[in-house]
Amino acid sequence: MNDLQYEFGMVGLGVMGRNLMLNIADHGFSVIGLDLDPEKSAAVETEAGAGKPVRGTTSMEDFVQSLRTPRALMLLVPAGKPVDAAIASLLPLLEPGDIVIDGGNSYFPDTDRRVVELEQKGIHFFGMGISGGEKGARFGPSMMPGGNRHAYERLRPVFEAVAAKVNGEPCVTFLGNGSAGNYVKMVHNGIEYGVMQLLAEAYDALKRGVGLDDDALQAVFQSWNQTELQSFLVEITGEILKYTDEQTGQRLVNVISDVARSKGTGKWTSQNAMDLQVPVPSIDMAVLMRDLSKYKEERVAASKALPNNITPSGDSAEQKQLTEQVRNAFYFAMLATYAQGLAQLKVASEAYNYELQLAEVAKIWRGGCIIRAACLTNIRAAYEKEPALANILLDPKIGSDLMERQQDIRATLKFAIDRGIAMPAFMASLAYFDGYRTESLPTNLIQAQRDYFGAHTYERIDMPGIFHTQWS
Amino acid sequence: MNDLQYEFGMVGLGVMGRNLMLNIADHGFSVIGLDLDPEKSAAVETEAGAGKPVRGTTSMEDFVQSLRTPRALMLLVPAGKPVDAAIASLLPLLEPGDIVIDGGNSYFPDTDRRVVELEQKGIHFFGMGISGGEKGARFGPSMMPGGNRHAYERLRPVFEAVAAKVNGEPCVTFLGNGSAGNYVKMVHNGIEYGVMQLLAEAYDALKRGVGLDDDALQAVFQSWNQTELQSFLVEITGEILKYTDEQTGQRLVNVISDVARSKGTGKWTSQNAMDLQVPVPSIDMAVLMRDLSKYKEERVAASKALPNNITPSGDSAEQKQLTEQVRNAFYFAMLATYAQGLAQLKVASEAYNYELQLAEVAKIWRGGCIIRAACLTNIRAAYEKEPALANILLDPKIGSDLMERQQDIRATLKFAIDRGIAMPAFMASLAYFDGYRTESLPTNLIQAQRDYFGAHTYERIDMPGIFHTQWS
Repeated sequence: MNDLQYEFGMVGLGVMGRNLMLNIADHGFSVIGLDLDPEKSAAVETEAGAGKPVRGTTSMEDFVQSLRTPRALMLLVPAGKPVDAAIASLLPLLEPGDIVIDGGNSYFPDTDRRVVELEQKGIHFFGMGISGGEKGARFGPSMMPGGNRHAYERLRPVFEAVAAKVNGEPCVTFLGNGSAGNYVKMVHNGIEYGVMQLLAEAYDALKRGVGLDDDALQAVFQSWNQTELQSFLVEITGEILKYTDEQTGQRLVNVISDVARSKGTGKWTSQNAMDLQVPVPSIDMAVLMRDLSKYKEERVAASKALPNNITPSGDSAEQKQLTEQVRNAFYFAMLATYAQGLAQLKVASEAYNYELQLAEVAKIWRGGCIIRAACLTNIRAAYEKEPALANILLDPKIGSDLMERQQDIRATLKFAIDRGIAMPAFMASLAYFDGYRTESLPTNLIQAQRDYFGAHTYERIDMPGIFHTQWS
Repeated sequence: MNDLQYEFGMVGLGVMGRNLMLNIADHGFSVIGLDLDPEKSAAVETEAGAGKPVRGTTSMEDFVQSLRTPRALMLLVPAGKPVDAAIASLLPLLEPGDIVIDGGNSYFPDTDRRVVELEQKGIHFFGMGISGGEKGARFGPSMMPGGNRHAYERLRPVFEAVAAKVNGEPCVTFLGNGSAGNYVKMVHNGIEYGVMQLLAEAYDALKRGVGLDDDALQAVFQSWNQTELQSFLVEITGEILKYTDEQTGQRLVNVISDVARSKGTGKWTSQNAMDLQVPVPSIDMAVLMRDLSKYKEERVAASKALPNNITPSGDSAEQKQLTEQVRNAFYFAMLATYAQGLAQLKVASEAYNYELQLAEVAKIWRGGCIIRAACLTNIRAAYEKEPALANILLDPKIGSDLMERQQDIRATLKFAIDRGIAMPAFMASLAYFDGYRTESLPTNLIQAQRDYFGAHTYERIDMPGIFHTQWS
C-alpha cells in the first residue's frame, strides 16, 4: 500500500504509538507510522496483519509525502526535548495548513510556546492528553485535545472513531485554545494522584485499623465497585488485592515496596494551583505522601523512636459498621478531590483563556481514562445545568451527597486519629469542605499579624479602604 | 563629613534601608545611603541627628567613591528587576574585591545567577534574608547571609554589631554558599506562614468551638506566651486580641476582613519543597488557606448551601480542659512545622551545595526574626548534639515533647472535626507525625496501581529487582 495517501501519521512507535495506530486502522482509517528503529516500523505492519491500511517507515520524507494534505500527524515521543527535536526535523517538510499533535504529557507552557512558533508558519499545533494506558490506546482512550478550534475538524472523524465511548458518546472533544488539552490532562493526573492516595489511605485504615484480612479487603473493594463508588481505580484496587504472588503464595500487594514513584504531573498540578491561588489540598497531600514514602530509612527509625501500637478492631459487627463508614468517607473525599481539580480548571480557563466547558471535560472523563467514575455523570449534569458553576460543592445534588456522608468521614477520621493512622488526603478533603463552607475564616487574625509585624495593611468588613494600625 | 571613607553603604532608603542605616550608625560604623529621591536621602541625615557618621546622597558616583575599599554595600530595593537594575548601574563603578549584598526577599535562583555574574568581575555577591520588620531593622534584626565565605569577614563586624542578640550571641552568621541566605529566609517565611495558620486555627477552635469570648481569648494567648509556647507570633497574637478599635469600641480583629494576602515566599517554599520531594504539609496548608480565604463570595454561598451550626461548649470546666488541649496541640503542631522546614533545609543544602549547619540556623532564628521562639533552644541543642540529624522528630527530647502532647492534638482535632471547624494545618501536622513514624505506608498499593494501568513497574520487599505484573 505504498501509493496510498494516508489519512493519519504517527511519529514514535513505542507502546502508545503502536497501539493507537492499530486502533485507528481498526476504524478504517489509513495510518502510516514513523520510527527511526526499523524493528519498530516493521513490527507495526506485522502486528496489524495483512489487509489493514497500516504502514511503517523509517524515512521522514517518505512519511510526510505519504500523508494526505492537509496533513494530520501525531507525535508520541517523550515530553521535553524529544518533542522539540521531532518538530524541528519535521518542520522543513510540512506545509501551511498541516496539523501536528503532541500526544504526550507535555508541560503546558511548552505547548503554548510551540503553538505560537508553529502558527507563525501556518501549521496548527495541538497538545493532546491521552489517558487509558496501553489498553486504552488500543481499544479506546480518553483524549483531551486543545489547539485551533477550526483545525480540529480535520481530526474529529479519526479521534471520535478511536476514542472510548460511553452510551455512544465519544470520550474526546475539542477542549479549548492553546495548551488547554495538556492542562486538562495535567489536572486529570492530579485528580488521579488524589484518588489513588485516598484508596491507599482507605486500604490502610481497613487493614491496620479495622483489622480486615486479605480476603476481606479484596471483597470490600470489589463490592465498592458495585455501588456509587464504581470507577476504574476502585475496580483495579479490587483486582490488585485479589492477585496472588506465585513466589510466596501470598497476596502480591503485600510484598510490594511502599516507596512510591511519580513522574511529575501531580506535582505540576499542585504547583500551578498555588500559582493560580486555587486550593487543591487532597492533591497536594497525595503528591506529598509519595514524597514521604521515599524516606524509608527515616520512617523505620521513627517507628522505633516514636512507637505506635495499633490494636485493630476485632468485633465483626463493629468491623462492618466501620467499613461502611470508610466507604462513605471515600465517596465524600473523592467528590471533594474532583471538586478541587475542576475548580482549578475553571480558574485556569480564565487565566489562560482556554474557554473550557467543564461539562465537556466531565463528559470525556467518563470513559477510557484512569479517573473514569460513575460520579462524573452527576458532575457533568451539574455543569450542564449551570455552566458557570463556581464549584461542584455548590450543586444541590452533589452538595446533598456530601451532607449525607459527612458524619461518616468525620467518624472515619476520628477512628484513624485515635489509632495514629495517617489519612492526610481524607483530612484535607474534609478540611476543604469545612473551610469552603465557612463564611468567616480566622484569616482575619493573619491579616492583623501581617499588619502588626510588616505594616502590610488590612481591610475592614464594616467600611471600605485600606488600614494600618500601630498595634503596640 | 563629606571626606570620610564610609564603612558601609546602603542603596534604597525605604523603611528597611533607613532603619538599618540608623542601626549601623548606632554601633559606631560610618554609613552612607543612596536614594535617587532627594527627600529620602536628606531624611536619613535628619533622622540620625548631628554627630552621627551618617550621610545620604543622590549621586551614585559620590556614593561609590565615598566607600572604603574593598567596598561593602547593601541593596534594599524590591526583589526582581529593581535588583538587577541597581546592580547594572553600580557595576561599572565597582572594583574587584567589592561586596554587594542583596538584603531583600529575592527568589533564590536569581541570587545564584547574580553570584555567578558578579564573581566573573571579581565582585562578591551576597543574598541576605533579613527578618524582624521595621523595628527589627532599627534595633536588631535576624540576618541570614549567604555567599562567599572569605568575603564575609569584611561584613562580619558590622553585621554582628547590628543583629539582634540572644544571651549575647548575635542573630547572624555566615550560612552557606551561593543563595543559601535567601533560601534559609524563604523557608523561615514558610515556617512563619505555617505558625500563623496554626494560630488562626487555634483562635477559631477556641472562639467558635470552645466558645471563649474576646476577653478570654486575649487572656489565653497572653498566658501561652508565659509558657514553653513563648514566641514572637504568640506574643503579638495576644496583643492583637487585646487591641480595641476606636471606631466601634470592639476588638479590632473582629472587624478585619478574612481575605488574607500573601507576597509569595510561602508559596515558593511549598513549590520548591515539591521539587525537592520534601513533605512540608503544614506549610502547604497555610499557603492554601490564604488562597481559600480569597473565595469570599463562594464561601458565603457555600455557608448557606452546606450549612453548619456550631454549638459552642458552655461549661467552664470543659472550656478550661479544651483550652489546655488546644495549647498542647499548638505546641505539637508548631514543632512539627519547624521540623518540616528544617528537613527542607537539610535536603536543599545537599541539593544546592549550601553546606548549611542547622544548629547555626536555629541559633540565629532565636532572636530578631518573626519565627523566634523558645522552642528553638531545644532545636539548636538537637542539632548541636547530632549535626547530621535527619529530622528533629528523631531527637529524644523533641520526640518526647511530641509523644507527651499527642493525645491533646488528637483530642483537639476530634473536637474540631465533630463541629465542622476546619483545622487543616493542625491536621497536616499530626498526619506528618503519624506518617513519618509509619514503617510501612500503604503506598505499596499505589505502586501496584501504577504498574496495573501504566506498566510503571515496582520493587519488592523480599527480593531485589524491578518487576512488572500482568494483573488482569
